[in-house]
Amino acid sequence: MALEGRDLVSIFDFSDREVEALFDLADAMDEHKHVGMKVADGSILCTLFYEPSTRTRLSFEAAMQKLGGGVISVADATSTSVAKGETIADTVRIIESYADMIVIRHPLEGSARVAADYASVPVVNAGDGAHEHPTQTLLDLYTIRREKGGLRDLSVALVGDLRYGRTVHSLAFGLARFGADVTLISPRGLEMPPSLLERLEREFDCRPSQYHSLGDIVTDSASVRRRKGSQKALATELLATFDAVYVTRVQKERFESDDAYQAARRGYAITQDVLAWAQADALVMHPLPRVDELAYELDQDPRAIYFRQAAYGLPVRMALLAALLGKRPVKVKRARKGDYRPEPRHEVDFRKMAQLKCPNPLCVTNHEAYLGPRFTFVKRVSDLVACAYCEQEVPSPLGAASRG
Amino acid sequence: MALEGRDLVSIFDFSDREVEALFDLADAMDEHKHVGMKVADGSILCTLFYEPSTRTRLSFEAAMQKLGGGVISVADATSTSVAKGETIADTVRIIESYADMIVIRHPLEGSARVAADYASVPVVNAGDGAHEHPTQTLLDLYTIRREKGGLRDLSVALVGDLRYGRTVHSLAFGLARFGADVTLISPRGLEMPPSLLERLEREFDCRPSQYHSLGDIVTDSASVRRRKGSQKALATELLATFDAVYVTRVQKERFESDDAYQAARRGYAITQDVLAWAQADALVMHPLPRVDELAYELDQDPRAIYFRQAAYGLPVRMALLAALLGKRPVKVKRARKGDYRPEPRHEVDFRKMAQLKCPNPLCVTNHEAYLGPRFTFVKRVSDLVACAYCEQEVPSPLGAASRG
Amino acid sequence: MALEGRDLVSIFDFSDREVEALFDLADAMDEHKHVGMKVADGSILCTLFYEPSTRTRLSFEAAMQKLGGGVISVADATSTSVAKGETIADTVRIIESYADMIVIRHPLEGSARVAADYASVPVVNAGDGAHEHPTQTLLDLYTIRREKGGLRDLSVALVGDLRYGRTVHSLAFGLARFGADVTLISPRGLEMPPSLLERLEREFDCRPSQYHSLGDIVTDSASVRRRKGSQKALATELLATFDAVYVTRVQKERFESDDAYQAARRGYAITQDVLAWAQADALVMHPLPRVDELAYELDQDPRAIYFRQAAYGLPVRMALLAALLGKRPVKVKRARKGDYRPEPRHEVDFRKMAQLKCPNPLCVTNHEAYLGPRFTFVKRVSDLVACAYCEQEVPSPLGAASRG
Repeated sequence: MALEGRDLVSIFDFSDREVEALFDLADAMDEHKHVGMKVADGSILCTLFYEPSTRTRLSFEAAMQKLGGGVISVADATSTSVAKGETIADTVRIIESYADMIVIRHPLEGSARVAADYASVPVVNAGDGAHEHPTQTLLDLYTIRREKGGLRDLSVALVGDLRYGRTVHSLAFGLARFGADVTLISPRGLEMPPSLLERLEREFDCRPSQYHSLGDIVTDSASVRRRKGSQKALATELLATFDAVYVTRVQKERFESDDAYQAARRGYAITQDVLAWAQADALVMHPLPRVDELAYELDQDPRAIYFRQAAYGLPVRMALLAALLGKRPVKVKRARKGDYRPEPRHEVDFRKMAQLKCPNPLCVTNHEAYLGPRFTFVKRVSDLVACAYCEQEVPSPLGAASRG
Repeated sequence: MALEGRDLVSIFDFSDREVEALFDLADAMDEHKHVGMKVADGSILCTLFYEPSTRTRLSFEAAMQKLGGGVISVADATSTSVAKGETIADTVRIIESYADMIVIRHPLEGSARVAADYASVPVVNAGDGAHEHPTQTLLDLYTIRREKGGLRDLSVALVGDLRYGRTVHSLAFGLARFGADVTLISPRGLEMPPSLLERLEREFDCRPSQYHSLGDIVTDSASVRRRKGSQKALATELLATFDAVYVTRVQKERFESDDAYQAARRGYAITQDVLAWAQADALVMHPLPRVDELAYELDQDPRAIYFRQAAYGLPVRMALLAALLGKRPVKVKRARKGDYRPEPRHEVDFRKMAQLKCPNPLCVTNHEAYLGPRFTFVKRVSDLVACAYCEQEVPSPLGAASRG
Repeated sequence: MALEGRDLVSIFDFSDREVEALFDLADAMDEHKHVGMKVADGSILCTLFYEPSTRTRLSFEAAMQKLGGGVISVADATSTSVAKGETIADTVRIIESYADMIVIRHPLEGSARVAADYASVPVVNAGDGAHEHPTQTLLDLYTIRREKGGLRDLSVALVGDLRYGRTVHSLAFGLARFGADVTLISPRGLEMPPSLLERLEREFDCRPSQYHSLGDIVTDSASVRRRKGSQKALATELLATFDAVYVTRVQKERFESDDAYQAARRGYAITQDVLAWAQADALVMHPLPRVDELAYELDQDPRAIYFRQAAYGLPVRMALLAALLGKRPVKVKRARKGDYRPEPRHEVDFRKMAQLKCPNPLCVTNHEAYLGPRFTFVKRVSDLVACAYCEQEVPSPLGAASRG
């Protein structure tokens, strides 16, 4: 079966059609979520969390039990003996003998790839530092598909901290893959990193518009020139183009002063006033937990779907577990032209040259001694290579040599 | 079905007949507790504990699994991400999408009511600060019913710390509802608070006798006058009237000195000597854990039923979960005259007057900003209102105004 | 059924034939481990861990769920309310009303015996301080039986810290019971304690050869005399006699200096060079986690079976749980001549003489006040008695009296 035995470390591990097939399965699962199923009877999932993430852990554990399977759990491995100096590679090779599947969360970037490499059972990444958290992206995309009827021809605004937010990074790529028109709205200093913008354009031909506050949209001169209306009409029109507004938390600690934080906060907070300009069926989304970027007064607005969004995590994860365990057929359609499909990554052979270490201090290769540096060529870019674990891009020593 | 979809936040949420119907179901459950059942197959319970209470958590988790259901668990939310600034209202609205039922324990008073208000699934209070722990009271009452054959016409002594003990407060009301004769025996300074005594009398016409030590019973002059026997015969007689003696822990920290503690301790410790005067079929109960208020030597006495009492927690909680999930019919008989039944609480409209805040610093309304103050009228007392969450009674600004 | 309702506190609680019958059942369980079974449907296991041991806990919890049963868990009781001054005896008498079986881990020696004495449900010792961890020994023996075809006529080397290592102590006795030829290789200062060597000889007629490093084997003069070959051939021959080499961790903290540690480490580290001299089908075993006593380069060697060894923990624990719960018949054959069988231990009556306290400061009797001192006679040795809980041997006051 299509996804049986596969790992999900990155949102790029699945093709567009595989994602859509998984969502079809999630639609079916959603009907069973109250009564449960017996498809994973006798199977066991291990949730191996090296840092606590209660929401994510509970969601996976509920999904497995709704499928009829069992769960063994390490809710916070750093405070237990698992962490006692044992490597990820050793830990997963032991746990795979107790569990039919492993969901891992670990603070080091690339750690989930290591787990997937060493474990013979399917491994799902539930967050590896700032790198990826693919099931969050899947449930975000699924939410949009469920609520809007599809993933094509959408206009989505990502609002908040776009610099450090792993969730919005992955979602931007997920949206770009399906051809969405992406708008970025973030406080000054918390813009999406240039390397990600380059990659969005390079790989998916996606060039997001960028604003520093929701208010800026109104005074954006390019828009003014393009649309020739009054400012108010303009703002209405632009805000009204969004099918979904995805808000994320901005952490106070990112700002130099409380004043700077408060000023930025006003620029992206979603209030009833802002929503008044949005489409009647626009979606207001949030990965939760929220702090105060979404007022409680919004909860009654039918466009405020963040709790429903969280709830979709259950059918999506039920579908994912059933698919990777091979307990439910996943019908993947033939790829369309332009669809994203994972391609074999070509590893750079370093035997002939000086050692290259991954420069990312949080990369798993800089913490687990048995892992040698491994790099892959970057598609379409000859002078960069990427760490095979954390995907950090670095200048290629080969390219430099060939140029030199 | 009678209790399907209901919450259990307070022992007052169920009528006398509902409590009895639940106990009938618990009787039936008790027969199945070793082999298990399949009634809650496919359902999931979330134990959401903001402070650890292993015994209570394990009991609920065992009950759910004995019914065939699954469990997701947060054993100590304060040390995990659930607590990361997220409100109770938001947390339960996420968890309800994973779980068919929530058992919550939280240090703030009234917190379980908030959870019940916001969650669409049934919520059971497993302890909200000093406020309530209704399943403990249910299992205490169930123990008495099982062991004595009924809940009517009983004489029960509550012994120990009656000031701070949430367990004995709830039990006193539970007993009073069923017409029991209640005797209170507590060290000086740890008597039951006057407000509770007033409420016992006001609502259930219950006026407990009070003593400061088991020894005082002997020299109680009223008893002497009434009964005209020798002191020894008297004490025998009075002690012998108790169908059950419910002992709770007295914490050393409540006393000014170790001497004061030791003196008090002698006054309420249940020893073989004390038991020698009790009925042959009296019950010695304790919510456990004990420290030294019950000697190990008592364990062999057939009247020492505290471990059996703890064991009844399983069938009682199995019955409760099955009933609230609507998985088993609960046959509630027609109310008798004088039965307690929950009545709609009339909320005080504060829009026309100055804001009134709940004066209880541990009330959930003083910690969760989205909750406005809410007060209800107190039955039969015109100059008091009660916080709708923690039930703290405060002078009514309306009453004061009308009187002024 | 043979093992139904029994406890497993010590590897000595089961006869040789019972161990073998359990292994036969484990063979059968191994075939079901991927699909699961329904034999323990409706039963609940409580894992009660007073100190964290993630690997062991997960293994038991997976085993129970693979049998179809449920699990309630206390992953680290010291940080929860279970520990709040409550005795082991009280705790297990409460937990037995929720669970059909208890697996306990506790830092005090003899604690598991206390739990077994007070609980009416089967109790399995998952480690009681330095005393015993019998399921580790069972899976070690099972591994050897599975990989070598039997437990008779084996030659096994135990390598590493043999002084403090509970695992190797129990394994030495397990091997001795089945007549294995045992060789001990440990750094100076970390040799197996003389009392254990005496007991091995006394009870099982087992006299292990002892070396201080793998290198010493080569220069051992007795071997030279016995075998009359060149040193290299000798070493080859001796190393080549081992059917299994069981390596354990040596902790740096045991040494006076880092130099001493490094020197010792070289003496017992298993490298490709060492393995070159071993049999083609020798087993390299390790209880894991390893630090650096086993190089990662060995992982590819077919003789490096430590991960398979860990994996055998699942069928062994499935068999054990099913057997003790009486859910699967265990066919115990008639004992052979010389087989080990547990005998009733005769308790020393101390009423007639001065109180004797167990001198082991980590013995549970020195921490739980309700436990009186209890001692049993030591088989074949008249002047020693052993603590009935931690098995520490002490001079017999009776023997002294009779001799005096």
